[in-house]
Amino acid sequence: MSRFAEPQHADFRALNDSLAFDWRLGPYDVELSRAHAAMLASQGIISASERDELLEALSTVAGELADGRFPFAEGDEDIHMAVERRVTELAGPVGGKLHTARSRNDQVATDMALFVRAHSARAIELLEELVAVVVDVAERHLDWPMPGYTHLQRAQPVYLSHHLLAYGWMLLRDRGRFEAALIATGMLPLGAGALAGVNFDTDRQMVARELGFTGVAPNSIDAVSNRDFVLDYLAAAATCATHLSRLGGELVLWSSEEFGFCEVSDAWASGSSIMPQKKNPDAAELLRAKAPRIVGHLAALHGVMHALPLTYNKDLQEDKEHLFDAVDTLELSLAAARGMLAGVQFRRERLAAAGADEFLAATDIADLLVRRGMPFREAHGAVAGLVRSALAQGKTLSELSPSEIAAGSELLDEEFYAVLRRENWLESKRSEGGTSLGRVREQLDLLRAELAGSRTP
Amino acid sequence: MSRFAEPQHADFRALNDSLAFDWRLGPYDVELSRAHAAMLASQGIISASERDELLEALSTVAGELADGRFPFAEGDEDIHMAVERRVTELAGPVGGKLHTARSRNDQVATDMALFVRAHSARAIELLEELVAVVVDVAERHLDWPMPGYTHLQRAQPVYLSHHLLAYGWMLLRDRGRFEAALIATGMLPLGAGALAGVNFDTDRQMVARELGFTGVAPNSIDAVSNRDFVLDYLAAAATCATHLSRLGGELVLWSSEEFGFCEVSDAWASGSSIMPQKKNPDAAELLRAKAPRIVGHLAALHGVMHALPLTYNKDLQEDKEHLFDAVDTLELSLAAARGMLAGVQFRRERLAAAGADEFLAATDIADLLVRRGMPFREAHGAVAGLVRSALAQGKTLSELSPSEIAAGSELLDEEFYAVLRRENWLESKRSEGGTSLGRVREQLDLLRAELAGSRTP
Amino acid sequence: MSRFAEPQHADFRALNDSLAFDWRLGPYDVELSRAHAAMLASQGIISASERDELLEALSTVAGELADGRFPFAEGDEDIHMAVERRVTELAGPVGGKLHTARSRNDQVATDMALFVRAHSARAIELLEELVAVVVDVAERHLDWPMPGYTHLQRAQPVYLSHHLLAYGWMLLRDRGRFEAALIATGMLPLGAGALAGVNFDTDRQMVARELGFTGVAPNSIDAVSNRDFVLDYLAAAATCATHLSRLGGELVLWSSEEFGFCEVSDAWASGSSIMPQKKNPDAAELLRAKAPRIVGHLAALHGVMHALPLTYNKDLQEDKEHLFDAVDTLELSLAAARGMLAGVQFRRERLAAAGADEFLAATDIADLLVRRGMPFREAHGAVAGLVRSALAQGKTLSELSPSEIAAGSELLDEEFYAVLRRENWLESKRSEGGTSLGRVREQLDLLRAELAGSRTP
Amino acid sequence: MSRFAEPQHADFRALNDSLAFDWRLGPYDVELSRAHAAMLASQGIISASERDELLEALSTVAGELADGRFPFAEGDEDIHMAVERRVTELAGPVGGKLHTARSRNDQVATDMALFVRAHSARAIELLEELVAVVVDVAERHLDWPMPGYTHLQRAQPVYLSHHLLAYGWMLLRDRGRFEAALIATGMLPLGAGALAGVNFDTDRQMVARELGFTGVAPNSIDAVSNRDFVLDYLAAAATCATHLSRLGGELVLWSSEEFGFCEVSDAWASGSSIMPQKKNPDAAELLRAKAPRIVGHLAALHGVMHALPLTYNKDLQEDKEHLFDAVDTLELSLAAARGMLAGVQFRRERLAAAGADEFLAATDIADLLVRRGMPFREAHGAVAGLVRSALAQGKTLSELSPSEIAAGSELLDEEFYAVLRRENWLESKRSEGGTSLGRVREQLDLLRAELAGSRTP
Repeated sequence: MSRFAEPQHADFRALNDSLAFDWRLGPYDVELSRAHAAMLASQGIISASERDELLEALSTVAGELADGRFPFAEGDEDIHMAVERRVTELAGPVGGKLHTARSRNDQVATDMALFVRAHSARAIELLEELVAVVVDVAERHLDWPMPGYTHLQRAQPVYLSHHLLAYGWMLLRDRGRFEAALIATGMLPLGAGALAGVNFDTDRQMVARELGFTGVAPNSIDAVSNRDFVLDYLAAAATCATHLSRLGGELVLWSSEEFGFCEVSDAWASGSSIMPQKKNPDAAELLRAKAPRIVGHLAALHGVMHALPLTYNKDLQEDKEHLFDAVDTLELSLAAARGMLAGVQFRRERLAAAGADEFLAATDIADLLVRRGMPFREAHGAVAGLVRSALAQGKTLSELSPSEIAAGSELLDEEFYAVLRRENWLESKRSEGGTSLGRVREQLDLLRAELAGSRTP
Repeated sequence: MSRFAEPQHADFRALNDSLAFDWRLGPYDVELSRAHAAMLASQGIISASERDELLEALSTVAGELADGRFPFAEGDEDIHMAVERRVTELAGPVGGKLHTARSRNDQVATDMALFVRAHSARAIELLEELVAVVVDVAERHLDWPMPGYTHLQRAQPVYLSHHLLAYGWMLLRDRGRFEAALIATGMLPLGAGALAGVNFDTDRQMVARELGFTGVAPNSIDAVSNRDFVLDYLAAAATCATHLSRLGGELVLWSSEEFGFCEVSDAWASGSSIMPQKKNPDAAELLRAKAPRIVGHLAALHGVMHALPLTYNKDLQEDKEHLFDAVDTLELSLAAARGMLAGVQFRRERLAAAGADEFLAATDIADLLVRRGMPFREAHGAVAGLVRSALAQGKTLSELSPSEIAAGSELLDEEFYAVLRRENWLESKRSEGGTSLGRVREQLDLLRAELAGSRTP
Repeated sequence: MSRFAEPQHADFRALNDSLAFDWRLGPYDVELSRAHAAMLASQGIISASERDELLEALSTVAGELADGRFPFAEGDEDIHMAVERRVTELAGPVGGKLHTARSRNDQVATDMALFVRAHSARAIELLEELVAVVVDVAERHLDWPMPGYTHLQRAQPVYLSHHLLAYGWMLLRDRGRFEAALIATGMLPLGAGALAGVNFDTDRQMVARELGFTGVAPNSIDAVSNRDFVLDYLAAAATCATHLSRLGGELVLWSSEEFGFCEVSDAWASGSSIMPQKKNPDAAELLRAKAPRIVGHLAALHGVMHALPLTYNKDLQEDKEHLFDAVDTLELSLAAARGMLAGVQFRRERLAAAGADEFLAATDIADLLVRRGMPFREAHGAVAGLVRSALAQGKTLSELSPSEIAAGSELLDEEFYAVLRRENWLESKRSEGGTSLGRVREQLDLLRAELAGSRTP
Repeated sequence: MSRFAEPQHADFRALNDSLAFDWRLGPYDVELSRAHAAMLASQGIISASERDELLEALSTVAGELADGRFPFAEGDEDIHMAVERRVTELAGPVGGKLHTARSRNDQVATDMALFVRAHSARAIELLEELVAVVVDVAERHLDWPMPGYTHLQRAQPVYLSHHLLAYGWMLLRDRGRFEAALIATGMLPLGAGALAGVNFDTDRQMVARELGFTGVAPNSIDAVSNRDFVLDYLAAAATCATHLSRLGGELVLWSSEEFGFCEVSDAWASGSSIMPQKKNPDAAELLRAKAPRIVGHLAALHGVMHALPLTYNKDLQEDKEHLFDAVDTLELSLAAARGMLAGVQFRRERLAAAGADEFLAATDIADLLVRRGMPFREAHGAVAGLVRSALAQGKTLSELSPSEIAAGSELLDEEFYAVLRRENWLESKRSEGGTSLGRVREQLDLLRAELAGSRTP
């Protein structure tokens, strides 16, 4: 019996029912219900045989969900009701005891925490696999020179390995963010009831242990109102997707004929419906395009939570689609980044040719002056004058005559031409974290150690 | 034959293929193809009999799409390729002629324009239906007094009709925004080819007429790079959803026991899984919760377009899911708002009791002093003093004695008590657009005229 | 006298007071007050001499604001109170009459509408100036070939003028959006009072005429709750900034050594603190970077309005900083885009060399086959095969032998080589809106006509 | 000397120069420069006496910045250049040596990390102060009953202390987020040079120790491209502001006459310009309104970083204003929340009266049936039937007759009426984390312990 006299309007059902998306919580809901039933029996709230009937029905449900045979029914408004209905079909009236000492409010918060935990762990795995590919690709291109850019202008030469490893460090930081999201799911909401706690002598610690939580949510109102862990996942995913967008953007750029630094493999490209010659780096473009989507989900969930009175409000149902789509988008993006990056073919000659641009060594000339006692700021000005003079005459720096360079600064001599010989440019960047080969090898060791250390929680 | 040696990677397909969502463009794609085939024949690029074969196959496809029998195939990466493949299955090699003088780039831009046009029109219809309900509900509660609020504090009394009509005007403005979005779809992209125009003597004006466009996009590069009309739709939808969130938020508030101003009908409410007494205004909560979702889509599409080089980039594929979900969310929200609002039961006594709070007339006392020559700012201060004195003594204003009010201002006399008699509060707000009954009736006429005038384009 | 016993807390003042930013509304507030005073006198609510005293004081205030001499005082919490206080200092107690029949709620809504109107008009001017520069630069580079790109891959050749004009059309559409924002400010809020209308026989139509509004807001509650016009401005600005970010992004890309298509002038570039050779296109980068900022303001204001109960709430004070920063950012961006674009030096040879890539004509070969009767889809496949074969041998298409091309399709003959001669590629794109010179000239005429037609309202 | 022939355009300066906001980095820039100079000397790159001259000048600059006497000059484009220029004025040409072995790119990243670190620590302090106030206010209202709400409908009774403590836990989680942001600033960027490392034998570990970093950024490219720590701060601030918006929203609601649960003190309220009786909870409204602003900054910075090629780009200058405004907004909000909450006066009678609503005990009746052996789902239905019957007759539950309740379920007897006696409702919620007094006391102890444990890093 319901307290309502009228059935629900079809448009209301369409707006209100969540089964179309929250079916994904099914396995977590069953897991939760198992632990809850075990606890109810352990506390004497239901009998051992009732527990066994419930557990058997829940096993059946788990199997049905796993292989897609679960019989959803017309009236199921959400996955929680669907599971309870099915348990009651299978086990009889005892199914009605499953909801003793719990509420959908603490139940859905717990399901969501389990989901976020599982997918934070999955993101960590995918990140580690991707970083492993970065390390591998970097090693294979350890000493390939290329220009480093600032403002997309050639700035100073670097090794391709050094450039690629920058992404390794970004992604390792992302791992840390998902570890924090995982920790943020550590407090069990179940047992908070609707909002105030329950009238039964429950054992929340037991449920927490059973379900792998590190503790229980200490305030029942907060437990059912809280979606911080979803925000934490989304914030981690947004930053990670933003990193991937930078990688995607660079691969698009480098795949252009003008840069010509690399070519994605055929398996990660597509053609044009009209232009037969085209080979488009679609996967890289999509990596670039996905970040705003996840940022949009993050901002939207903040919007949903904004100014929401305690405790549970139906608005919280809006947490799910934002999270689910972010999870799918991120996991697919990470897998795609790994596959695509592993297959990218870099072009040594194009990279080297661009990296041979003599102006890339202008800083080295300034530093030569510094070593001869000139304050850096002054040295910078002197070299800028030489650059301007070279550009005006359409010359490279090494084409300037001894008298021209002496006009720039009397401290300049033969060494000027020596510095401009390419072989020294990269190896002189010997400061910690710099691009010289020894430093890059140190980095590779550090990254591998970080990967091996793996995650803590 | 393809220019590629390797097949596409499964993860790439998962990331790249759009059929899982762009099947919704099917009917528009067929409509477009019909007009394109007719034009190709009219210009002698294909023969009349080829056109007829194409049109017949397209008719079959249209039917198959309409009744869900369209046979999607494994290799279909998007709806455009699926339709062309099916046409070729049905019509033979002539199907390969359909893509003459067009590209997926101009094709998808045109499909999207048709989709946005159709759903802008739909939003306009739904808005007009909702405004009609607002007008109807306002009329049924024309002279029901209630407190008007600022800062959620009781401020001055208004009629419920006046309060409700505020939403009517918001929603009418939203109609104007969707009309602008509709106009923004007016320039036909088709015929721009991949990006540069086509090598054939096409007649874009003919296609535009056929498909109901008002003109042709004047620059082929812009035609395939442009998604402004999607942004326009999303901006309109975001503002509309924000309006609905205010309506939803107020209905939630008014449904609380504390306000008690209304009750949603059983058909638009749901119960609790644990608390048998609960009747929750879920639909109103979800109206409140949906705005950030649409704002998220708007911001995300801006993010996708951000800094994107011309012309077409795969990133533009990200326009679709944002648009489609926004359309579904908004159309459902508008329908739900209409249904729910029509069934809300307002509580005259609760509204009136709250609206009888005597402090609501404090401004009227100040205005009395103004009419007696005191500058408003001074009058405001004098009445504030009386309010403070009344509060300190736990009195209402009319419980202050003649000597007490004279202490507030010597200009106050018997008229003070007369002004505080409730019957005058609302009708004295006789300025244009004010809450007096005559003014509310004027508003109703204006709103009805706006509705009758209907949209312009 | 105030109704409060305690003074405000310093932290409250810091949070609450808006003078630090709303001083910008000063001139509008004075303009509004003039019209209001005139109306009060015209309706006999104040006397003619009182009006004159108020108007004289307001003139003084206007002057003080204009030349920065306005004496702000410690207690001024917002610009409205500051102006009224100063008027009272200048005119004596009659200053207290200025606030008769109005409230800060309708006052601030009106000030904001005036501000949005003025800056929508300013955006329109700046857009027209920028489009004029686009037209001018396009004309100066009318017949400069370059590659058109899709997916940042060379696709088909276009003229630089055609590419640049794409921005002209985007920006003209933006003009339309600001015209709509301008129209959205057309209904005068003033006269709505706090929320319910006022107790005086005012003439809102007179005030509307005086201040250049097209009508009066028909519902007093909506009048003080409404910030739609701010959202409209922000939505227009967001789309415009997104367009500018695409322009900025392309100029950054084209300024790279690898593309080398252009160089920004020294007046729009900066150097490096360390690398003496650097010339960075900072202005173009900042154009690229500003769009998310304006989108952020748009999303934030939606967030503020989300679920806000009617009528006025203090939250609405948050409309100002979002709007003001968006206005400043956009106006500076438009001015910078104009100045920078006018001074960009394009490099004809680099553009032409990139545009001479023979693969750009692959579609033309497919179209040749189409003209010989082969369905396009089949032709596309045949040419893709030739491309693959050429790439495998490291040849260009025209280096394929007659027998090789015949192996691709027996319909191919000498004409194959003729099509690949560069001179025809661009002029064959003769469809309306295409890149052939005649079509680009049509476009220039259309754009100029649009500019000349100027804005409607 | 510069490599440029032309001076910068005024509009470019307006767009490009950052001194108007990055002056806030001044103290950090000086701190950084001190450590850098010390290291240069320690490594023999400059002499000890040069170091001393630099340090003396830097001391002077620090003092000038601290007391507002720093003489900014016309040509200063950013704070870094301003400080270096001033050092050179003070110390002579040796000032030019300060920029040896560093670049603005690693310098600004380091300044930003120092700024984020300082303000993460400040947020932690402010949070702890606010939580202490929450604890204090909760203790002072330990056993004040009130209704708990779901869907803003009265659901089950709770103690006010329990409700308030929910905010305590939210805010403690926020502390954890700022601790993570603080840790995220741990790797010193300085020494990365422009992007590739430097040509000098520097000691980055020494600088790191000096400046309180835990290590050095291991990749020079990542070091200058990375703004993750700013995103981390903004994500923490966004979640914290969203929590504060919920608190603000509830205080607004509870301050309404209809709820009447509390009144903010005069020091945290303001009046109306027109309505003399008004007392508006402006501070609570502004707390509510600020969250979207910070979320907007977070989303905007993600937008700026989106798809940005490595390494440094001018776009990164857009990190500052987003961060600075978020910091100011959040710190002010936290201080205001603390001050306002400390002064809120709760109304025991209004809370208690609302909390005495008998329907709040409906779940307890269902649980009574459960204890008598009825499955919960069935019990829920039986009680819902009683509720419906009571509502239909306009009765409370306890007004139902014994025969009426027996009709609901034969398991119901006298105990039904006993359960409905108010005294048991709250204390029966004895599950861990529930609202019974013992549990709330446990919570208080836990929270105090968390506060005492203070932050880890």
